[in-house]
Amino acid sequence: MGDIAPRKGIPEFVCIGGTKHRMREFAEFVSFNVFHRKNVKLVNLTKHSHRYATYKVGPVLSVSHGIGIPSMTTVLQEIIKLLHYAKAVDPIVFRIGTSGGLSIPPGSVVVSSWGLNGYLEKSYDIPVMGRSLKLPAILDKRLSQEIYSMASEEDEFQTYLGGTMGADDFYRGQARLDGPFCDHTEEDKLEFLEKLSEMGVRNIEMEAPAFAALTKEAGIRGAIVCVTLLNRLEGDQVSTEKGTLLQWQKRPMAIVAKFISKYLDSSMNGWK
Amino acid sequence: MGDIAPRKGIPEFVCIGGTKHRMREFAEFVSFNVFHRKNVKLVNLTKHSHRYATYKVGPVLSVSHGIGIPSMTTVLQEIIKLLHYAKAVDPIVFRIGTSGGLSIPPGSVVVSSWGLNGYLEKSYDIPVMGRSLKLPAILDKRLSQEIYSMASEEDEFQTYLGGTMGADDFYRGQARLDGPFCDHTEEDKLEFLEKLSEMGVRNIEMEAPAFAALTKEAGIRGAIVCVTLLNRLEGDQVSTEKGTLLQWQKRPMAIVAKFISKYLDSSMNGWK
Repeated sequence: MGDIAPRKGIPEFVCIGGTKHRMREFAEFVSFNVFHRKNVKLVNLTKHSHRYATYKVGPVLSVSHGIGIPSMTTVLQEIIKLLHYAKAVDPIVFRIGTSGGLSIPPGSVVVSSWGLNGYLEKSYDIPVMGRSLKLPAILDKRLSQEIYSMASEEDEFQTYLGGTMGADDFYRGQARLDGPFCDHTEEDKLEFLEKLSEMGVRNIEMEAPAFAALTKEAGIRGAIVCVTLLNRLEGDQVSTEKGTLLQWQKRPMAIVAKFISKYLDSSMNGWK
Repeated sequence: MGDIAPRKGIPEFVCIGGTKHRMREFAEFVSFNVFHRKNVKLVNLTKHSHRYATYKVGPVLSVSHGIGIPSMTTVLQEIIKLLHYAKAVDPIVFRIGTSGGLSIPPGSVVVSSWGLNGYLEKSYDIPVMGRSLKLPAILDKRLSQEIYSMASEEDEFQTYLGGTMGADDFYRGQARLDGPFCDHTEEDKLEFLEKLSEMGVRNIEMEAPAFAALTKEAGIRGAIVCVTLLNRLEGDQVSTEKGTLLQWQKRPMAIVAKFISKYLDSSMNGWK
């Protein structure tokens, strides 16, 4: 990965997301739609570590981060070190993902303004040597608004700007009723989800507070763009047909690729 | 996965661990060493989900869980549901993994007695609808002692029975000095690691408290067997040569496979 070196006037972009498969698809998407390259042979640069997958297309790195905060922060901290060593100029880190939506139609896209932890605080709390380190989980306002402004009336879907809850658990931690353990009722669940909705939370995933906190702490602009696969107020299980879901997963990719295109076009030395 | 059905007198075994690669290797190891089958074609039963990999060899499931508690608990809860639906008889769930050791030689194996969270409590604390649910992180004593008793004087390595800290972060959360953010000194780190060691912690990984708590809550016997890749009191980075590390990673596999062999041999209907 030694060739991500500083290039005057050229920003460096990193996009992270859950699965290796999706991040390969994003690299292909960027390669074709931003750089107009066909049949590019993509190589997983971190194949032998068996932990994460990394693809590089021009100044864009596409990296998988697995599920949940500890998995994501391990690779995000390695990326932060990498960008530092590579002396990257004004890098921007995106997270693209899937999520459960609150009071918005399935297939909608949410650009996150902040992350909320499981105790309903806008912070990422990490135990360091037995004590709690509390870091604010606010995302770069200008960047999120710039990304949000990419949404167009011609889109087949709605885009929202709002808060994102990052849960530490897929089942109880998201008030689901379909896990192996459940001490709460449908009524408790709906009361909780309505409360989140009133706080301005538009979707629930499993990484937002830590992503917001660590990019902020590193002084790197970061943004989270997720598609919602269901409306959690209507159920816990994703029932939409797989082909449709795969199409929906391209929506955050398309928005981020559009943003990268715009940035590269306005830079002095385009990569096209 | 419909064919893991109840078979009278035959236990069902599930072994989970971090990477897809290692869990495929474990399935091959069990296939060859427990069932004496050569050149078995292993199929990843959950390939199309792109999240986890699952292999099945006789009554043994081998499943990857990624990095960290949220990733591990997502698949562990799905396994608990699966074992319930399959009416599995007395299933045993193992986690095999890699870890950092405390005051023991690199390459040693630790069989966990309990999990410790980042606040130095023997519990897994999970936020459920804004409030903390605190679950005890104690592992099945008889099972861990039975596994520990598998260690032999002929082994090239030492095996220990002790506590395991499951950190939510790879860098600061484990008092490392080599992450992108670090507000503590070498002295602070050593003081913390010595404190853990005095509490009976033998190794640090990223899943133990949640694994202990959820298997206990489900009433399923569970055990954690990890190899240590370094002695954290001597450093933060793994410097041992890759070939040696790959050999060390087989140590927990060998112990768990030996245990499964013993169980199957003593059951009424062997699978051999």
